[in-house]
Amino acid sequence: MKRGFFITFEGIDGCGKTTQMDLLADYLRDVKDVPVIETREPGARGLGEKIRELLLHYEGEVSPQSEMFLFLADRAQNIETIVNPAVQARKYVLCDRHTDSTVAYQGYGRGLDIEEINMLNSIATRHRIPDLTIVIDIDVQTSLSRLGKDTDRIESEGVDFLNSVRNGYLTMAKMEPDRIKVVNGMRSIEEIQKDIIKLVNDLD
Amino acid sequence: MKRGFFITFEGIDGCGKTTQMDLLADYLRDVKDVPVIETREPGARGLGEKIRELLLHYEGEVSPQSEMFLFLADRAQNIETIVNPAVQARKYVLCDRHTDSTVAYQGYGRGLDIEEINMLNSIATRHRIPDLTIVIDIDVQTSLSRLGKDTDRIESEGVDFLNSVRNGYLTMAKMEPDRIKVVNGMRSIEEIQKDIIKLVNDLD
Repeated sequence: MKRGFFITFEGIDGCGKTTQMDLLADYLRDVKDVPVIETREPGARGLGEKIRELLLHYEGEVSPQSEMFLFLADRAQNIETIVNPAVQARKYVLCDRHTDSTVAYQGYGRGLDIEEINMLNSIATRHRIPDLTIVIDIDVQTSLSRLGKDTDRIESEGVDFLNSVRNGYLTMAKMEPDRIKVVNGMRSIEEIQKDIIKLVNDLD
Repeated sequence: MKRGFFITFEGIDGCGKTTQMDLLADYLRDVKDVPVIETREPGARGLGEKIRELLLHYEGEVSPQSEMFLFLADRAQNIETIVNPAVQARKYVLCDRHTDSTVAYQGYGRGLDIEEINMLNSIATRHRIPDLTIVIDIDVQTSLSRLGKDTDRIESEGVDFLNSVRNGYLTMAKMEPDRIKVVNGMRSIEEIQKDIIKLVNDLD
C-alpha cells in the first residue's frame, strides 16, 4: 500500500452509514489486514465532541450561518488532527459525514449558498478531497421510520427538509460520479456491505 | 436619530476597551438619552457563551483553523440575533471585539491568510461593516503588566504574539482611516473617554 485513503460515508439520518462504516472497518482490519482509523463529523474526539454537543443538543436559538461555521470548526479540527496524520501514515481513514453533509443539509436543505459552502469546505479541509464518498441512499419514509422517536434537533425537522437533503446528495453524485458513489440502502445489511467492499477494493 | 449605529471596540488584551465601552454606554443612556445595547465577541449570550467557553477555556488541542471558525460561528450568531435587530430598531450597538480581532489575532498574530479571513468575516457578518471602530492602543509591556497573572489561554501567548497583533491593528487603521480610529490608551480613563465621546458624537 503506497498511500492512505480517505473514505467518507454520507446519507440522510437512518440510512445505515454508521453500521456500514463499522463493518467496512472490520473487513479492512480482519480480511485485508490494513490499518484503519474511524472518525466522524461532527464530534470525533476532544474539541470535536464539545462542538458536537452544541450542534446536536443546544436548545436555544442557533442561526443557520452560525451552525454552518460550527460544522466547519469541527471539520477543520478533524482534518488537521485526525485525518491528515492518518492518511500520511498510510492508513485507511473512514469518516462518518464530511463536507458533502454540509452541502446537503445546510445548502440543499436549509438553502444557504452552495458555492459559498463549497469554498468554506475547501478552506476548512485545506483543500483535501476524499478518495471515495459512499452515499447510502434510502427514501425519507424509511429514514423516519428507522429513527423512531429517538431524534435530536436536526433529525426532527421533517419530511420536506429530508427530501431536499436526499435530493441534494443524488444531485452531487451526478456532478462528481468519480468520487461519489450511491449505494441502495433499502436492502439487507449484507447486500449493502458487499457493494461497499467492491467500491473500496476498486480504489487500490 | 434616523438609524442605529454599530460601534466596535478593539485592541490588545488589557487595553481598557471593556471599561471604555461601559462608560460610553452610560454616557449614551444618561446624557444623550438614546437606547443602547452592549454585546461582545466571543460570547454575547446563549450559544455565544458556550462558544466563548470553548475558545477561552478548552484545554485540549485546538487547530488554528478550527479556532477561527469558532470565532466566526459566534460572530454570525451575534450579528444575526443581537446586532442586526438592534441596529434596525435604531439603537446604538456597542460590541467588545468583532471582525478586526480575527484579522489581528488569527491573521497578523497567528499568520493565517488575511484575505481569506476578510472573506470569511464578510460571510459571517452578511457584509455588515461597523459604522465606527475604536482601537484603544497600548504597548505590549502595559498589556502584560495590567493583565497580571489572571490570564486565559489566548492571553498567555507572550510578547511577540501581542506585538504582531498590536501592529496588525495599527496597520488596519492606516488602511481604513474613515472607519477605524486609534485612541491612545496609555492615559487616564477620563482622557480616553473624552476622545471616544468625541468620535461617537461625530457620527451623527
